[in-house]
Amino acid sequence: MSLLQRIAHCHRHNLSRFLPFAVGGRQVGHMRNDLAQELRRFPSVFRVEKGSVSIAEHLDSFDYRTAAIDSVMRELRQEGYIRGWRDELFTVASDYGAEPLFDLERAGVPLFGVKAYGVHLNGYVRRDGEIWLWVGKRAANRPIEPGKLDHLVAGGLPSGVKPFDNLLKEASEEASIPKELARRARPCGALRYRMELDGCLRDDTLFVYDLELPADFVPKNHDGEIADFRLLPLHEVERLLAETDDFKFNVGLVIIDFLIRHAYLTPDRADYSEIALALSRQP
Amino acid sequence: MSLLQRIAHCHRHNLSRFLPFAVGGRQVGHMRNDLAQELRRFPSVFRVEKGSVSIAEHLDSFDYRTAAIDSVMRELRQEGYIRGWRDELFTVASDYGAEPLFDLERAGVPLFGVKAYGVHLNGYVRRDGEIWLWVGKRAANRPIEPGKLDHLVAGGLPSGVKPFDNLLKEASEEASIPKELARRARPCGALRYRMELDGCLRDDTLFVYDLELPADFVPKNHDGEIADFRLLPLHEVERLLAETDDFKFNVGLVIIDFLIRHAYLTPDRADYSEIALALSRQP
Repeated sequence: MSLLQRIAHCHRHNLSRFLPFAVGGRQVGHMRNDLAQELRRFPSVFRVEKGSVSIAEHLDSFDYRTAAIDSVMRELRQEGYIRGWRDELFTVASDYGAEPLFDLERAGVPLFGVKAYGVHLNGYVRRDGEIWLWVGKRAANRPIEPGKLDHLVAGGLPSGVKPFDNLLKEASEEASIPKELARRARPCGALRYRMELDGCLRDDTLFVYDLELPADFVPKNHDGEIADFRLLPLHEVERLLAETDDFKFNVGLVIIDFLIRHAYLTPDRADYSEIALALSRQP
Repeated sequence: MSLLQRIAHCHRHNLSRFLPFAVGGRQVGHMRNDLAQELRRFPSVFRVEKGSVSIAEHLDSFDYRTAAIDSVMRELRQEGYIRGWRDELFTVASDYGAEPLFDLERAGVPLFGVKAYGVHLNGYVRRDGEIWLWVGKRAANRPIEPGKLDHLVAGGLPSGVKPFDNLLKEASEEASIPKELARRARPCGALRYRMELDGCLRDDTLFVYDLELPADFVPKNHDGEIADFRLLPLHEVERLLAETDDFKFNVGLVIIDFLIRHAYLTPDRADYSEIALALSRQP
């Protein structure tokens, strides 16, 4: 798979397979059709129409919506429809930083196709002027993409937590990076993709950070999410991206952006501008 | 004008104001309506239909097309319809690096709305850990945006010239940067915008380079395109972008990308992810 195909893979979706999900007349997600059909049984909470799903109008506050939707989610969980319950709330809003509309159990986020956010850290060292990237292998018990290669630090952004604060927390838990070192991480942009995964639409925006690490730094995982770490030269990272499916899908997107920003890829490649432009292809 | 508005300004266009321009059944541009009407007088070269313009099918080679279109362009120039003749050929293709379709006098590029390319260099120095950006003021006689602030080095990419080779040439002509210094410039990505300017659609892709310069480097212009240079701290650059129209439109786009990549802008801004994503908004 070429780097371009690797990027396109993250942007692949067909919105006609989903129902627009709206709150107060504003679309905030893309709902799986089968979930919409299940929600017909809860007419006091959801209005399921032919071409859309919305929250019942009488639920006109954050608290009302959160309570009503939570009870529906718990019922669907008991029936075994919703799996992978995380007991972690995610705040739904139309855009990053916009007015919170309701809190949703995290396992429901992809089913509703609402916007979610994450932080990804490119942790690297320089050896003789060459960049080597620290890469983790996801634990075999991860719900998404077990065993795939991942960033040194990456994670979903819980509601109300600032990206940098979340990065510092994850850097400590996932890779034992001391706070004073993690603080040197630099924000380098954001990437958004919309991708169909397991029948759900993932509408994710990732805050991207770079951190140059000392040559003798060795990461250790604390939270059990990473099985082991390895340090790879960029040409090996590129080979893995181009020739294997070893990397988790969205990690590839962030790494290709890293390869562009650090001048590892250059305009000598015929597909350079196409790659650079495809990275942030707006959905 | 906020940074977001500054970016949106570069992406503003309405394709319905233009006629699709095709070669061999493939659309390669967006033609100004009034040009299309002029071209009706040349039915052996252009096929002007209700909703599109194409090159007559019998012109089935690069050389045929180039010769026939050149004669039309020269006639339109004599009639005063085409102004700003540059006597510089630009190769039209469907995409960067794709099969050349014909050569077109550069003054015609915006009229046909075909894809064009450029190189932009962020030339900067570090002072006490702060980044200062070298900025040029465009000469009063430039055909586009005279007197506006510009990059240290920037220019259109002539056909068949590699971006880096063009950068080295422009760096010497525009700012007297010695070749061995200019060679340290690093490619950092590409940005594309489609913008209506003077009734034309500009469909431009810019190859972006960064070059850290020695603190004592002082640029000198050779080709008369820049009136003078100044070195500005990033907070002044940001203020000029936000509060004035001093910068040439596309320079603002490239500089905001620079501010993101160099962690001058951070996710502490509520509009950070919106800015980062808007930069590469695909048309």
